[in-house]
Amino acid sequence: MDDKGVTATLLISCPDQKGLVAAVSDFIFRHDGNIIHADQHTDQERGIFLQRLEWELAGFRVARDEVGEAFRPIAQRFGMTWELRFSDYVPRMAVLVSKLEHCLYDLLWRQRAGELRAEVPLVMSNHPDLRPVAESFGVQYQHFPVTPETKAAQEARMLAKLEEERIDLVVLARYMQVLGGEFVSRYANRMINIHHSFLPAFAGGRPYHQAYERGVKIIGATAHYVTAELDQGPIIEQDVARVSHRDSVADLVRKGRDLEKVVLARAVSLHLRNRVLVYGNKTVVFD
Amino acid sequence: MDDKGVTATLLISCPDQKGLVAAVSDFIFRHDGNIIHADQHTDQERGIFLQRLEWELAGFRVARDEVGEAFRPIAQRFGMTWELRFSDYVPRMAVLVSKLEHCLYDLLWRQRAGELRAEVPLVMSNHPDLRPVAESFGVQYQHFPVTPETKAAQEARMLAKLEEERIDLVVLARYMQVLGGEFVSRYANRMINIHHSFLPAFAGGRPYHQAYERGVKIIGATAHYVTAELDQGPIIEQDVARVSHRDSVADLVRKGRDLEKVVLARAVSLHLRNRVLVYGNKTVVFD
Amino acid sequence: MDDKGVTATLLISCPDQKGLVAAVSDFIFRHDGNIIHADQHTDQERGIFLQRLEWELAGFRVARDEVGEAFRPIAQRFGMTWELRFSDYVPRMAVLVSKLEHCLYDLLWRQRAGELRAEVPLVMSNHPDLRPVAESFGVQYQHFPVTPETKAAQEARMLAKLEEERIDLVVLARYMQVLGGEFVSRYANRMINIHHSFLPAFAGGRPYHQAYERGVKIIGATAHYVTAELDQGPIIEQDVARVSHRDSVADLVRKGRDLEKVVLARAVSLHLRNRVLVYGNKTVVFD
Amino acid sequence: MDDKGVTATLLISCPDQKGLVAAVSDFIFRHDGNIIHADQHTDQERGIFLQRLEWELAGFRVARDEVGEAFRPIAQRFGMTWELRFSDYVPRMAVLVSKLEHCLYDLLWRQRAGELRAEVPLVMSNHPDLRPVAESFGVQYQHFPVTPETKAAQEARMLAKLEEERIDLVVLARYMQVLGGEFVSRYANRMINIHHSFLPAFAGGRPYHQAYERGVKIIGATAHYVTAELDQGPIIEQDVARVSHRDSVADLVRKGRDLEKVVLARAVSLHLRNRVLVYGNKTVVFD
Repeated sequence: MDDKGVTATLLISCPDQKGLVAAVSDFIFRHDGNIIHADQHTDQERGIFLQRLEWELAGFRVARDEVGEAFRPIAQRFGMTWELRFSDYVPRMAVLVSKLEHCLYDLLWRQRAGELRAEVPLVMSNHPDLRPVAESFGVQYQHFPVTPETKAAQEARMLAKLEEERIDLVVLARYMQVLGGEFVSRYANRMINIHHSFLPAFAGGRPYHQAYERGVKIIGATAHYVTAELDQGPIIEQDVARVSHRDSVADLVRKGRDLEKVVLARAVSLHLRNRVLVYGNKTVVFD
Repeated sequence: MDDKGVTATLLISCPDQKGLVAAVSDFIFRHDGNIIHADQHTDQERGIFLQRLEWELAGFRVARDEVGEAFRPIAQRFGMTWELRFSDYVPRMAVLVSKLEHCLYDLLWRQRAGELRAEVPLVMSNHPDLRPVAESFGVQYQHFPVTPETKAAQEARMLAKLEEERIDLVVLARYMQVLGGEFVSRYANRMINIHHSFLPAFAGGRPYHQAYERGVKIIGATAHYVTAELDQGPIIEQDVARVSHRDSVADLVRKGRDLEKVVLARAVSLHLRNRVLVYGNKTVVFD
Repeated sequence: MDDKGVTATLLISCPDQKGLVAAVSDFIFRHDGNIIHADQHTDQERGIFLQRLEWELAGFRVARDEVGEAFRPIAQRFGMTWELRFSDYVPRMAVLVSKLEHCLYDLLWRQRAGELRAEVPLVMSNHPDLRPVAESFGVQYQHFPVTPETKAAQEARMLAKLEEERIDLVVLARYMQVLGGEFVSRYANRMINIHHSFLPAFAGGRPYHQAYERGVKIIGATAHYVTAELDQGPIIEQDVARVSHRDSVADLVRKGRDLEKVVLARAVSLHLRNRVLVYGNKTVVFD
Repeated sequence: MDDKGVTATLLISCPDQKGLVAAVSDFIFRHDGNIIHADQHTDQERGIFLQRLEWELAGFRVARDEVGEAFRPIAQRFGMTWELRFSDYVPRMAVLVSKLEHCLYDLLWRQRAGELRAEVPLVMSNHPDLRPVAESFGVQYQHFPVTPETKAAQEARMLAKLEEERIDLVVLARYMQVLGGEFVSRYANRMINIHHSFLPAFAGGRPYHQAYERGVKIIGATAHYVTAELDQGPIIEQDVARVSHRDSVADLVRKGRDLEKVVLARAVSLHLRNRVLVYGNKTVVFD
């Protein structure tokens, strides 16, 4: 295993206390590591400290597979929740879709163009329609039709398939089914949904119709981690576009598509680059 | 009365039907008027036609005080709701405030700088605090303290004062009292409020705290006409600003102030220039 | 020829004068046309009047192929430059590319998804690289390699090909060659380029490098009609994105791609829907 | 001197090398300091490391007036350029204006409202017009009329006045004179100008007229440190607003005013909070 150009990243959260920054950076320095990114955030109100630290493995005097072990004592001393990631690991991502292709297309194109560093071995859908899109990018397409009666069983099969493919990140690219609690908890903080409104405005169904009816002057899109409560998960990214009385619902849908694509892609990219930390029902985005 | 440089503006809404545009523009042309702005919108879904038409009085062969009479037959033929305004009439505007000064300051400065074409003879408040601000701009400040017991009576007095000052437009510049139905209906479509969130998200109290708790990545402000239902009136203007986990509630409040000022000022300016038409619970903004 | 659902659009420019709006709308009304969009603009400084008028052909009492003849006397009376378009004509669009695929991909996807109402029979390039992209959308790809010696001859061949395919609109989707005067003048106001900066900042080559060097906090993209002078043509649409010191040139390029795609697509869509009028070196966009 | 609630801030730049982060944070930790903000940036291309570190003085086991001495050995080891600031020092700011009041008004209002942590003892101008604005905020106004003949002498007098008032930061709030080299170099990285365009577009005079002529769809404003070359200094902050063919030059000026105010205020606030580091002709903004 060659470590040239490879970086290690620590994502840390723990109760705020003195000496945290020094202890962690000293750990890197003591072993001759070269830090290339370090950022932290303290939530004063809740007394939580969150940190992201990235350093070069080349020249680091702890072998890659011993880094975790070497860091453990520090983590224990401060009561840290932590993750360690290496930049040459390519995460495996599955995309769930229904009938709308724009987000799927956009994600697959970005993956192929090198914008999203991930393998995409699998697209799953409750409809057969988007098979040609997936297959034109050489990606396996699995169709899991869902009825109220079969929903639980199908989700179990989908979970099995995700496991079989060793999926790290599930992306709901306008997947129009609400997933059950088991599914959601299995991919806690590892499943991203795009909601086609500026949450918390217009949660639930038909947000563009709601926006049209309300007469808003700006529409939005929101990418968030999926939690048990619909459209309530930690927000990763949002963006907006200006609209006017001249825009019909169809215009909002069309303008919204461009928002959905770019907001979802940004959130997925941030996640894949280990830039997002969840705490409570919020995210810290180290961008 | 000299008509040089003066324009007349018609604001029209009626059921959509053939010949509307031609009939109205022919009315102007027949009397040698020179149209300098014409815009219209058809809400296809509800079959409503809305139009704004502005033309020069100079050279128009109907005397200013006969224009309305001359137009009436056309309006009746098409079943129009309409208003006629002359650009040399300077609307009279009152500002209602509580303790926060930023919007009041901004409005008074813009009025004095010539950005808002209005007279501002009156500031009213349920608190005494902002008297120096109003008076530094030479504006009368009236203090109407409000308790649950005195609310109805005080609002009646405020209404009387507004009437006495012949106020055309009431602006709630962070006025923290909910006004009663009588007050609201008396200034229907003539009372603008600034709400410090991106409505319909975070309606009601303490929107910045709500936004902070929800962990949104963008905050907003909304200017709308006041209706009986709180924060539900027709939206005139909205704008947003990006925030991050680094922003405390105090930061949101500070960033929000800049939004509130500019969104409210834009809405007031649009109203004063006769650019807003209300229909249903929405606005058409002819900008 | 069935006129149900078909609209006619007039795009007009002429010296400003009285009676213009009335004369034109009266022309529609007199023949029982139903106007569904009318917008105009007067450039006070230069005394130019510009108008867009769209009405339903169904029920209009002038046959489609006689509309132009019927309108001609009005046009002559006011000295109008004008165009007449019917909504059931589908414009034919060619895309010129070099090696970068993102804009080409985006345009072809939008065309297939129905966002851009155009036929795209032809992609031309000075490189062979993007043939698979074009062909995956079933579009013919023509390779015209260009050297300083062959440039003039190749452009003549490209022009012949465009003519053969009866192309109405040429889109330069990151085409990295400067086109000769003959080519440019043949497609005056019918050839759109995307420049990867916020013009007039960073005209010419390598704008992202220039932006990085200058340390700007915002980057942009500009879609404009191509004229003889490089990057100086009438601007149709621009948009921007925030950047920071954390962004390398590669990050600017990546963020810029999203801007380029969406700005070019908006400009092409506006043009295809007959919403753009050029006068002097500027555009009026009736959106 | 009570240190409760007071923070110390280090702003550091030096050649990139291993151990920097660890050495600095260890310095804080070793003396029981509690870091509340730490951010750094490495310009890979130029091999420059830049850092901002802020920690609480309370509990820090180095006396305030010995912190610099204690840090010096570390700074020398790594060849650092560095500054040390304490949060209870209130910087002294002078504003230079000509005839336009909006930025001056905005700055003085924000200072009084507590948004800008600075004292403002002095406004200087080449015109007498804005005396009432300054004095309504209780600020001394000094009038230095400038002619080509008197320019050098007047600037010398202005410099003397700034020195006399121990000014830390000079803000050019639409000051319409180009300052001489001596003046500029004396306040290198301590003098902020607002330029009313999206630099580098429309540098020099009358940018709104230039923007109108060019037909741009977006206008901007830029706050930057002043250097010898006009409008070429390191950019601190920029923002933009959408415009259309409907906007006259006067409209651009009006919309631009809102941009200028907010962009200048943000830049000044960032500077006052020690969030800006200059290197080469760029800034790093630790926000």
